[in-house]
Amino acid sequence: MLVHHLYSGGKDSSLAAWILTRLGYEVRLVTVSFGTLDNWRFARETAERLGFEHRVVYLPRDILERAADMAIKDGHPNNAIQFIHERALEAIASLPEVERVSDGTRRDDRVPFLDLPRARSLEDRFKVAYIRPLLGLGYKTIRELVEKLFVVEIRESEELEKSDYEVELRHLLRERGIDPLEIFPKSHRQSRVLGWKEGQ
Amino acid sequence: MLVHHLYSGGKDSSLAAWILTRLGYEVRLVTVSFGTLDNWRFARETAERLGFEHRVVYLPRDILERAADMAIKDGHPNNAIQFIHERALEAIASLPEVERVSDGTRRDDRVPFLDLPRARSLEDRFKVAYIRPLLGLGYKTIRELVEKLFVVEIRESEELEKSDYEVELRHLLRERGIDPLEIFPKSHRQSRVLGWKEGQ
Repeated sequence: MLVHHLYSGGKDSSLAAWILTRLGYEVRLVTVSFGTLDNWRFARETAERLGFEHRVVYLPRDILERAADMAIKDGHPNNAIQFIHERALEAIASLPEVERVSDGTRRDDRVPFLDLPRARSLEDRFKVAYIRPLLGLGYKTIRELVEKLFVVEIRESEELEKSDYEVELRHLLRERGIDPLEIFPKSHRQSRVLGWKEGQ
Repeated sequence: MLVHHLYSGGKDSSLAAWILTRLGYEVRLVTVSFGTLDNWRFARETAERLGFEHRVVYLPRDILERAADMAIKDGHPNNAIQFIHERALEAIASLPEVERVSDGTRRDDRVPFLDLPRARSLEDRFKVAYIRPLLGLGYKTIRELVEKLFVVEIRESEELEKSDYEVELRHLLRERGIDPLEIFPKSHRQSRVLGWKEGQ
């Protein structure tokens, strides 16, 4: 029972990966990149520390450009992040022999988040099962499990070395002469998992 | 990390209980009863076969009466089932020293199901974490896990010996001279877990 799990190296996607292994799945972590930076390496590094198989899937740069257009038009990154996430899930779901895709999205997330019709549409279009191990967990439960399992580094997202979509999106905005701080919320704390806690 | 898990003896609530143990929780199964029948015994029996602690929590018969009123008024049991489920979660959440409550509700369930505002309201009012291990799983994933884990008996719900709310609700309707088949969907398959599959 192999599952391809969308992975950023953060605590949510790491916790979701751990849950999948506890349910008996063989987990292959997948980080998407548009090839404009090599920040996928941070997810690779965390994946290796946690002992997971990891691969990078490249998405067309056009998707990132369209996401940047959205973020600029909206003055806010939510639709852009949602757009990239859906394309990322579709890219993974369309790989040969992929039967199960998963991610670390949470009950309390606004974006990225697939509502029920979109989740079912993903499953039906690509004939996959879409698994979200964190969907039924609130922030208290996620916090207590993360604290039990992982050594986590938390910093402001502008400075953190991590592998989520935001990093390349911010980079592209800068290339277009736009300050990402005009679009992204100011104080957005992000996490990166550094490894298992002792005894895990 | 003790969690009180609303339990019917069916495959969904049994799978959710198993997932909770895999996440490291100590699981106490709770079956609610209105005291009009002793069908909670089927959940007790399954709980024992699976090796879980089990208790019965009695809800006021008034709740069952109000649910029956709803089902008769609607000509359909959905609101009644939803009403009982919310009262059951509240009853468990208000027990002394309960910090975590959970159930086996699924992504694809229409009822019983707490939307996000209701889920958060339950957590806030009773200062508990509300955990739904199956919420992020689709039917394919639930099916493959259930098949791996459990010996399951599937029959029409009218004949099955089980412990969910429907049984007492149907019984009360009959007491009021109403044929439950006028209100409940005709061919509603229900499951009961008989035990672990070999090797689990």
